[in-house]
Amino acid sequence: MVFENPVVKEIVEKYRVVWALNHAMGLMGWDSETYMPRAGVQERALARAELSVLSQKLLLRDELVSLVEKAKGLEGLNDYEAGLIRVLDREISIMKKLPPEHVYEFSRVTQEAFEAWRKAREKDDFEIFKPYLEKIVELARKTAEYLGYEEHPYNALLDLYEEGLRIRDMDAVYNAIIPWSRKVLDKVLEEGYFPQNHELEKVKYERGPMERVNKEVLDLLGYPWDRARLDVSPHPFTISLGIRDVRITTRYEGVDFRNTIYSVVHEFGHALYELQIDEALMATPLATGVSMGVHESQSRFWENIIGRSRAFIRHLKPILDKHLDFTRKYDEEELYKYVNIVRPSLIRVEADEVTYNFHTYLRYELEKQLIAGEIKVDDLPELWSDYMEKLLGVRPKSHKEGVLQDVHWSHGSIGYFPTYTLGNVLAAQVRAVADRELGGLYKRVAEGDFASIREFLREKIHKYGSTYPPKKLVEKATGEPVNPEYFNKYLQEKFLSKSI
Amino acid sequence: MVFENPVVKEIVEKYRVVWALNHAMGLMGWDSETYMPRAGVQERALARAELSVLSQKLLLRDELVSLVEKAKGLEGLNDYEAGLIRVLDREISIMKKLPPEHVYEFSRVTQEAFEAWRKAREKDDFEIFKPYLEKIVELARKTAEYLGYEEHPYNALLDLYEEGLRIRDMDAVYNAIIPWSRKVLDKVLEEGYFPQNHELEKVKYERGPMERVNKEVLDLLGYPWDRARLDVSPHPFTISLGIRDVRITTRYEGVDFRNTIYSVVHEFGHALYELQIDEALMATPLATGVSMGVHESQSRFWENIIGRSRAFIRHLKPILDKHLDFTRKYDEEELYKYVNIVRPSLIRVEADEVTYNFHTYLRYELEKQLIAGEIKVDDLPELWSDYMEKLLGVRPKSHKEGVLQDVHWSHGSIGYFPTYTLGNVLAAQVRAVADRELGGLYKRVAEGDFASIREFLREKIHKYGSTYPPKKLVEKATGEPVNPEYFNKYLQEKFLSKSI
Repeated sequence: MVFENPVVKEIVEKYRVVWALNHAMGLMGWDSETYMPRAGVQERALARAELSVLSQKLLLRDELVSLVEKAKGLEGLNDYEAGLIRVLDREISIMKKLPPEHVYEFSRVTQEAFEAWRKAREKDDFEIFKPYLEKIVELARKTAEYLGYEEHPYNALLDLYEEGLRIRDMDAVYNAIIPWSRKVLDKVLEEGYFPQNHELEKVKYERGPMERVNKEVLDLLGYPWDRARLDVSPHPFTISLGIRDVRITTRYEGVDFRNTIYSVVHEFGHALYELQIDEALMATPLATGVSMGVHESQSRFWENIIGRSRAFIRHLKPILDKHLDFTRKYDEEELYKYVNIVRPSLIRVEADEVTYNFHTYLRYELEKQLIAGEIKVDDLPELWSDYMEKLLGVRPKSHKEGVLQDVHWSHGSIGYFPTYTLGNVLAAQVRAVADRELGGLYKRVAEGDFASIREFLREKIHKYGSTYPPKKLVEKATGEPVNPEYFNKYLQEKFLSKSI
Repeated sequence: MVFENPVVKEIVEKYRVVWALNHAMGLMGWDSETYMPRAGVQERALARAELSVLSQKLLLRDELVSLVEKAKGLEGLNDYEAGLIRVLDREISIMKKLPPEHVYEFSRVTQEAFEAWRKAREKDDFEIFKPYLEKIVELARKTAEYLGYEEHPYNALLDLYEEGLRIRDMDAVYNAIIPWSRKVLDKVLEEGYFPQNHELEKVKYERGPMERVNKEVLDLLGYPWDRARLDVSPHPFTISLGIRDVRITTRYEGVDFRNTIYSVVHEFGHALYELQIDEALMATPLATGVSMGVHESQSRFWENIIGRSRAFIRHLKPILDKHLDFTRKYDEEELYKYVNIVRPSLIRVEADEVTYNFHTYLRYELEKQLIAGEIKVDDLPELWSDYMEKLLGVRPKSHKEGVLQDVHWSHGSIGYFPTYTLGNVLAAQVRAVADRELGGLYKRVAEGDFASIREFLREKIHKYGSTYPPKKLVEKATGEPVNPEYFNKYLQEKFLSKSI
């Protein structure tokens, strides 16, 4: 038994209804993006807003809060027990600070904002989304004020997605990787080994065969279909409704097939984290990945470090050749180049490993200034374009390619983007450990021994759920704090030495 | 505005969170039957049990209960306001009487029982399901005791599904229709015009084309796809997650195609009821069909009275011929006969209009005796078979064809089956009014003017949601109380005069 202390056990009992409500709301979120009839949005928004407030109320029940207070004074708790108290205390203290009206308003506005963003993007009209984004920035600023912060209100928002993350941490990461990424990019563009374009990008595909490809890729990686699903949504995502019910999505755009395949491999990484949490933590606050950054390290590990390696392409090629008629004439090396196109581009989700972090860096800088009130929503499109040009030398010709490309702000997620880069950096750091402990990561990949890799991740990271705070988990799993040098070293090996 | 009284308006506000939770639980139910990964059942059951109890607690909040008490004394309420208070008072008084432990236990047991029933049915082994059914009967008996009743504990259960329904009502219905149905059946079997078998029953079909048939049938009837869905589940059902989000399911067995088509038409009838409720009632206790019997009258009206008529077959035939390759050689009359096979049979859901009510009658009689403690679960398989033989002259050769055929008991639904027959009877009664007011129902069907029929039902029944209690709604819509003679007259016209 992981929970033995009677106070902790009582907390687990009393928390379960909050878990159940989160389970229900998770399902509502999944359904909204996958199967809900379009006209259902009004009633869904209403329900979501009501249940957000209810969830907060249930978490702040006196009987639960006082037990957590009591447990904070206890000595001799095991790691799971201490983790559970830490996580709940954190959740409670966040929720205590946010007035229910604020939570309700946030839920209501973001549901409407999502629809507005969808329309705005469709029509490439920023004005449709602008009033909602203004409202969201205002709400985010309020959130920061309610939560309190040191130095900068953005710190309060970063902490929401990544416990303990501060501007100084992210500045250190970006300062370490952005200049080096720029150098690598210049070198890659100069050498031309990794192409900037590939004719396979233009090839159209049918949805049916591509669904079979994705299914077989997931089979290869060891996706447990009795506990997991793959569906279709406008934006790929992963959601855990429980350790035994994890769902990923992808989209089929009909062209440039690497996008759907790598979104699936990416989401598989997220899903595996949730699926491999110790079942003893089921229905507790620990039964979920600890933070966005650590989560993203898992998806990036599978998508990029494994998925875009030569060793993986060897497994991918026969699957492609079996179901598609247009890949057979390309050899492995050519497919490798296709999935490793490197070019300065406008769309974050399509960016390669070298340029990806420029995209989050741009958002990170804009978000900091938005929250500090240094820039206005009205100025965003122009600032975005200017910054893009400065960073990567390309300029959006439409809002779709610029400020309207991401769903995140419409969800109210401000402070989220930098965790993508933290994930990239952590993935490279985990890779170094995997390489050492598995006797060569790419040897395992080449052998198709994904079970060993899954097991390694389970033991190092997944099984703990949210037991350890992210910074501690990173040290425990890799033997040191976040160290962006592993990422730089990885870029060097892959894009300059070309050895991966 | 339908709600103007300030007390009622406050009740609507305070009730909304209960509605939101029911919305979430409805979605969980839908998902469990359609897309949930099999292994997710454990966490889903846990969540469902927690939220059942929570829903009860929220309904019984002092602030809500005292407002409802206050409202009961108010004069001059309009029909909607009075209806809202009636429905909430009824819900509250039911929930007040049921201890939360009982609600939790019921939810937990039925989720497990459903899985057990599924296994038992698969293996044709009653013993697997028996302990769960015993538990469920015990819980149902307790429910009756908690709720209180006059004359017979079964009355308390009937009332749960059909407000105001009593054994004496159902006895009157069965006494009126069973002997006449028997006479009609003998006559039909003797005449042989309606066949007992048809070669189309044996024809296998592909799922793809049949999905297109079902979609086109729903298009024909006017199914609003932006507010509604069609999915696949082991047992067809309808669920309303809101007036703008209603979902039906069907199943594809690969043979005897009338089953899937008529399940779709049946569920369309249920869905239309929910979709046509006045949107002013959105997110209130009135935003749902008033009772199981009235609901079933709507599904039966579309499935049987419209769907199995000659006028409807004229529209169905071109749809079939377009998508299937095996219907072209049969003329309309032959298709009419195929969808109107009449024979004494073992499976309720496959029973025809003449024999269907014998099946519910059998369950009704057994349930009454189970709840009264006059018979034991252990004796059910034998009693079932004997009774079946007595009623229709056929005897199940397996539990699948007998006592294990229905999902309802595993859901804890005891007292539900008779509402199917009430629905059949009411459908015939509504038909008489429709015939009069639409200038001939089958004339409209022949013209493909389903819009007028939908409008008729909206105005007579649907738009009110749960505003009027079922008995009152029936009188309001049809001008008289439930009158089984309309059903007998319908059987006469269709199966003896052969004029429908």
